[in-house]
Parts: sequence; structure tokens; C-alpha cells
Amino acid sequence: MATPGAVEAKGTGGGTDKMAALKEIYKQLKAEVLEDHAAEIADHESAIQWIDRMVDYNVLGGKCNRLLSVIDTYKILKGVDVLSQEETFLACTLGWCIEWLHAHFLVLDDIMDNSQTRRGQPCWFSVPQVGLIAINDAIILRNHVLRILRRHFKGKPYYADIIDLFNEAEFKVVSGELLDLIITHEGRKDLTRYNETIYRHIAQYKTAYYSFYIPVACALLLASENIDNFGDVKNILIEIGIYFQVQDDYLDCFGDPVFIGKIGTDIEEYKCSWLVVQALKHADVNQTSILFENYGKSDPACVAKVKDLYKELNLELVFHLQEREVDLAR
Amino acid sequence: MATPGAVEAKGTGGGTDKMAALKEIYKQLKAEVLEDHAAEIADHESAIQWIDRMVDYNVLGGKCNRLLSVIDTYKILKGVDVLSQEETFLACTLGWCIEWLHAHFLVLDDIMDNSQTRRGQPCWFSVPQVGLIAINDAIILRNHVLRILRRHFKGKPYYADIIDLFNEAEFKVVSGELLDLIITHEGRKDLTRYNETIYRHIAQYKTAYYSFYIPVACALLLASENIDNFGDVKNILIEIGIYFQVQDDYLDCFGDPVFIGKIGTDIEEYKCSWLVVQALKHADVNQTSILFENYGKSDPACVAKVKDLYKELNLELVFHLQEREVDLAR
Repeated sequence: MATPGAVEAKGTGGGTDKMAALKEIYKQLKAEVLEDHAAEIADHESAIQWIDRMVDYNVLGGKCNRLLSVIDTYKILKGVDVLSQEETFLACTLGWCIEWLHAHFLVLDDIMDNSQTRRGQPCWFSVPQVGLIAINDAIILRNHVLRILRRHFKGKPYYADIIDLFNEAEFKVVSGELLDLIITHEGRKDLTRYNETIYRHIAQYKTAYYSFYIPVACALLLASENIDNFGDVKNILIEIGIYFQVQDDYLDCFGDPVFIGKIGTDIEEYKCSWLVVQALKHADVNQTSILFENYGKSDPACVAKVKDLYKELNLELVFHLQEREVDLAR
Repeated sequence: MATPGAVEAKGTGGGTDKMAALKEIYKQLKAEVLEDHAAEIADHESAIQWIDRMVDYNVLGGKCNRLLSVIDTYKILKGVDVLSQEETFLACTLGWCIEWLHAHFLVLDDIMDNSQTRRGQPCWFSVPQVGLIAINDAIILRNHVLRILRRHFKGKPYYADIIDLFNEAEFKVVSGELLDLIITHEGRKDLTRYNETIYRHIAQYKTAYYSFYIPVACALLLASENIDNFGDVKNILIEIGIYFQVQDDYLDCFGDPVFIGKIGTDIEEYKCSWLVVQALKHADVNQTSILFENYGKSDPACVAKVKDLYKELNLELVFHLQEREVDLAR
């Protein structure tokens, strides 16, 4: 599986007015971190401009699901439709911090996966003159998260918990990424290692925890709740997150690149995608050998053979049946 | 300039017994983070083994100057020759955290600079089967720092200050790295942008702050001092750090690869090295044009022309005179 981006591409999530308000808070947060940079390297205007452009390029452009989730959850917890100005600011700031962290992961993932496009534009590292400077840029984005949290939350009773939560999120993501990279790349391509158990582990660590649980956990902390009392909430959100990854993997192959904002490369990149796991599960001996021969090769003829097999195995139907199952369970 | 490693290569800093004791603490800290990983991904033994090997490969092998600096400074501040067991453990833990952070930066820098060797062995990313997984590994190393700090310092009155200090260190390094990368790579190679002012800025941010100031600041915090009262100490340490970078740049060209543990590539990589800055300062019109024609090219003939020019300009003497100046100022 690749890091999500497909399902959330090119979004305008929420109404236009709402997004405009959220964007104002983003502008303030960005202006503050740029001030911090300027305090250090004011003489180097081009470096400040670089960071300004880099932050916009990578933090904006998604559907902001994580940000919206913090706000909506906080409203539900408070039992109100409209938050006070301060509450809105704090919830949005936490939400933007998750978006910032997300941007950090996306920039690095795209380099590691050698991806081409993201959210309908070239991946940051493939923008002219960027290249591997993107690695340092990703570390800058990660550092911004802690600066923003320090500026706006230091002194709050839940400050240490928020810091721990973000660090735990990073820990989960790098664990998932490691599993993903090791089984995908480790020198010996071996499809027998791909199964539903490992798939769920990777999806849970790499995506579900920080994209689905962390926003809700942030809202809980903001509402002065003890997050340890909400284990069931965590488990449910992680299930939703895994399902989100299944959708993302499905769209990587069957989605319209114009709609999903990127050209899927899971087959070429030998990804442990939901599709290949299902294909391995349902394939007979002949079909399995087609997979072993063609999966993970960049030759378009090989990719086409894998896609044909997915169709032959009716994975679109398997996906839609699973979708219905999730719908019915709601 | 490249990230230091040369001057500190292949070290055994301190006595063998002392290093053995420090290594025991390292083993404990590593075992603890590996336990954290195992708690998450116990089913995936190969991932745990990967992290174990990766941490050893990248955290060990240097001279541990940063670690030794924390311990020595703390002893001076306490006015004792021998620290208690607990004091030793805490000082060493902070020291190892700086070494861990250093490892994080080295892994990423070597990728960004496309370096070949580090501390007498291949750079981590160039080890077979590693490649760009090294990026995720570097994030794991950074995450370990916060885990170690949380485990051993949460609850101490200076905990928040330590966290801030490490984040500030990261901020300084990425700022320096950005300046370095932007002026080195930004699509238009332009030697007229290299001068002593930008050189000092980069060295200060990229190296001096975290390698020289942070260890002393850690010891000050451990001794319950307010680091804001030690501005002069900071300024002096940053000067020492810049001088260290000058040495490192000098050795990149004139050092023995066997001794410095890496093959210098500053000329090929178009680095804003102390040597090229001095060459530009002392060169006449003809010599300047030789630099413009040959600097930043991987062709060995071009590299040789630059080295010949350095010799012609007597930069070895300039370096040794500056070394003496620093010695006299002691």
C-alpha cells in the first residue's frame, strides 16, 4: 500500500466559508513559524521564501480530513454547534499540526516510494531545484509541529500529553513504514509474505493511528478527557482507518487519476496492497504464478497482466461487497 | 562544507574502561527502545533486528565527543572527579541522546550529499538492502531521542527545558542545512555567493550549536542552572564549533582518508567549504576563473585542478596560521 492521498485528493472538505476561516488560522500559524526562521536567518531572504513556498506546497492541497475531524469531534464533545473563538483557534491549531505532520510523512514517503504525483501536482522532491533538499524540508515540517504546539499549548495542563501523543503517532507511523519497506524491498521479493495479517498491521500503524485516532485523541485532550478511558473509541477508529487504506489501495489501481490526484504505482512498486493480498487469497495455481511473474515490475505489459488478473478475480466486486459490509455495520 | 565526521572519525575518545562503562549505558538505552518496538511489532522479528542493527551502525563508531562533553562539563559544574551512579547515568543518557540525534542527522546528510563513506564504513543508505529505507530509519532515530528523554527525565523540573533544547537544536541544524543546500544546489551554481559570512552562518547552525553548545547546555540543565544566564558560554562554544568545521573542511581535502574515515567530496559536491571561501578570497582573476571552471565537477581532472590551486594559494599555510591564532587565543 502507498501512503494515502488518493481518497483525500483535491478536496474542499467542508463549506467554502468554513475552509476560508480555517485557512486564516493556517496563515497565522505559518506566519509565526516564518518569524522564528527570520529571527535566525533574516539575512537570507531566499531561504525564508523557500520555507514559505514549501509549507504551502505540502501542507495545503488535501481535503484536511484530519483537521476537520478535530473540530467536529470537539464540537460533539462540548455538545455545541458553534465553538468560541478561542476554542476554534485551539482545535484548529491542533488540527493543522496533524496536517503538518501528515505533510512531513508525505514528503518523505514520496521520496522512498519514488512517487510522481500527489494531490494533482508533482511530488515536492520532483519539483525542479528541490530534489533531496526535500528531506531537510520534511524535517523542517516536523520541527514546526513542535514549535506550534509549544507556542500555543505550553502551560496548558494537557501539554505534555499532546507532545506524547504526537511522538507516539510518529512512532506508530515509522513502525508501519518499516514493516512496509522491509517486506516490500528487503532484497528478496517474496509475495508469500503478503497476507491479511501483515496488511492490517501496516495499515494500522502507517495510516489508521495518526489519521483517524490522533485527531479524536486531540479533541479529547482539549476537552480535558483522559484518553486512556476511551480504548473502544481508539479500536473503532483504527478499524475505520484500515478500511480507508483498503479504499485508497483500490483507487490506486481502479480510480481515475484526475479524480484521485495521483497516478497509482502500487503494482510497479511491489506494494503490499489490499488488491494483491486479495488476489493471492483468491487465485488458483495458474493465477498465482501470473502474479509472481508480473507483480513489482515497471514494464506496462506486466502491470496490465496484473490488472487483468484483478478483473478476472472480480476484485472490484470483492471490494464493493466489503464496502457494503462496512455500510451495514454502521 | 559537509557534515562533520572527519575530525571525529574512528575515535576511542577517553580511556577504554571509560568507554566500556558508557557503552553499557548505551546497551541499556537501546534495549529499552527495542522493547518499545517489540511491544508494537513483536510478530515481526526481522523488523526488530533491523532496528537493532541500524542503531548500532549509526549511533556507534564515532568519537562520542558530544557524549564526553556532557559528562566532563557536568563534573566541572559539580566540582567533582567522580559522579554518583545516578548522576553518571543521567549525564550519559543525555549524552547518548545527542549522539542519537547526531546519527539522525548523519544518515540524512549522507543521503542528501550522496556521500560514500562515514566513520570508515559505507554510509548507511549505501549498505546493501538499505537504500532509501534509511530515511525512515533516520526518523526512527529521532523518535528514539524523545522516547529516551521521556522515559528517564519526565517528571524532572528541567524536563520541558531539555525537550525545548533538543527541538531548538534540530531547528538550528535544519536552518543551517537549508542555507547550505540552497546556496550549494539551487539550480544555479554561483561561487560569488560563497563568502566568510555565509560560511560562518552555515557552520554555526549546522554544526556548532548542537555539537558544541547543546552538550554543555544539557550539563547546565542537569546541574539545575538557568541556561539563559550563560550567554557568553554559548558564544564561545559556537566559535569553537565554527573552528571545528574549518578543521573538518580542511581535512576533507588534505586529510588521509584512512585516518578521517571518509573520502572527501566537498569539491565535487560544490560545497561551501572553508577552503573554497579562502581560495575565492585570495585568488587573482586567473585563479578565480580556474575555480569557476572546475569547482563542483566530479571529473577527477577538475578536482585535481582545484586542489592544485589550493596548494598554489598556500591554503595549508593559511589554515595552520589560523590554527595557531586559535591556539594563542586560548
